[in-house]
Amino acid sequence: MTQPAAEAIERLVRDIPDFPQPGIVFKDITPLLADPDGFGAVVDGLAAAGRGPAGEVVVDKVVGMEARGFILAAPVALALGVGFVPVRKAGKLPGEIHSVSYELEYGEAVLELHRDGVAPGDRVLVVDDVLATGGTARATRELVERCGATVAAMTVLIELTFLPGRSAIGDLPFTALAQV
Amino acid sequence: MTQPAAEAIERLVRDIPDFPQPGIVFKDITPLLADPDGFGAVVDGLAAAGRGPAGEVVVDKVVGMEARGFILAAPVALALGVGFVPVRKAGKLPGEIHSVSYELEYGEAVLELHRDGVAPGDRVLVVDDVLATGGTARATRELVERCGATVAAMTVLIELTFLPGRSAIGDLPFTALAQV
Repeated sequence: MTQPAAEAIERLVRDIPDFPQPGIVFKDITPLLADPDGFGAVVDGLAAAGRGPAGEVVVDKVVGMEARGFILAAPVALALGVGFVPVRKAGKLPGEIHSVSYELEYGEAVLELHRDGVAPGDRVLVVDDVLATGGTARATRELVERCGATVAAMTVLIELTFLPGRSAIGDLPFTALAQV
Repeated sequence: MTQPAAEAIERLVRDIPDFPQPGIVFKDITPLLADPDGFGAVVDGLAAAGRGPAGEVVVDKVVGMEARGFILAAPVALALGVGFVPVRKAGKLPGEIHSVSYELEYGEAVLELHRDGVAPGDRVLVVDDVLATGGTARATRELVERCGATVAAMTVLIELTFLPGRSAIGDLPFTALAQV
């Protein structure tokens, strides 16, 4: 199921060394996004994380994190026929919010979610481009849970297995279309 | 064609007064994004700007601006079967870039586009959520043209007709799914 997606990631994601700072190898997904077949394949692959064994949709919302997460999560929500909900950086969401501080691979920041973004009891699929240290993922889980909802699954294009992201997210059901 | 989209915008976009600063009425599209039928309708409406009279796709790329523009432009690119290319804020794109300064409705900033993001001769559809002063739109047009490509059309959810956005973008073919 995720074979075309894994092939597209292998072929179309490029490594940019020393970005955004020395020692970091940045996974640049823009060539993948510019390829409609590749982009479509990874959206299908990510959307599979929101389906049950018979292909039925088992989540109520898709949450994506600013900014690259938006590019993937919004099409996944449309593919599943469920609502899209943005998690944003500090000061961007205009309504009543929950707010969580977290550490990035390079820096520290705040993520926010509208209090009415997900409803109590909602099962949420979280979609992002890369799992690195897991800081963003853990903060997003906390935001979803503060709304009384549950992260049913998290899925990403690429898991950086040399970083402790998987242990940071705990027992969250997790899939990555590719690992490096 | 855009009737379901206009109805969804009317019903699901909420006004938030005095955000992000006093005197600004912010158009909050998050309730629209959380409604899968409404979100789907506006994606269809926006994608129409990339089609000719017989429904044929007449653009080579869809460009969306960080961050809310990503949420709309990425699904539009997938709907049209063409590549998605992000225009980002300063320092976010890891490859070789073009860079343009512009004025916002509230502030000033820099937008960037990968030099290889669009190819010479490409016809580009620019998608965003709101046309306000037109600063972002004009900067994006300049970025696309620096790559040797052309903005074939620009389309947004909402045009704020009390601001001079339309005159700022000049002779660009422009459509808005709703006007306020």
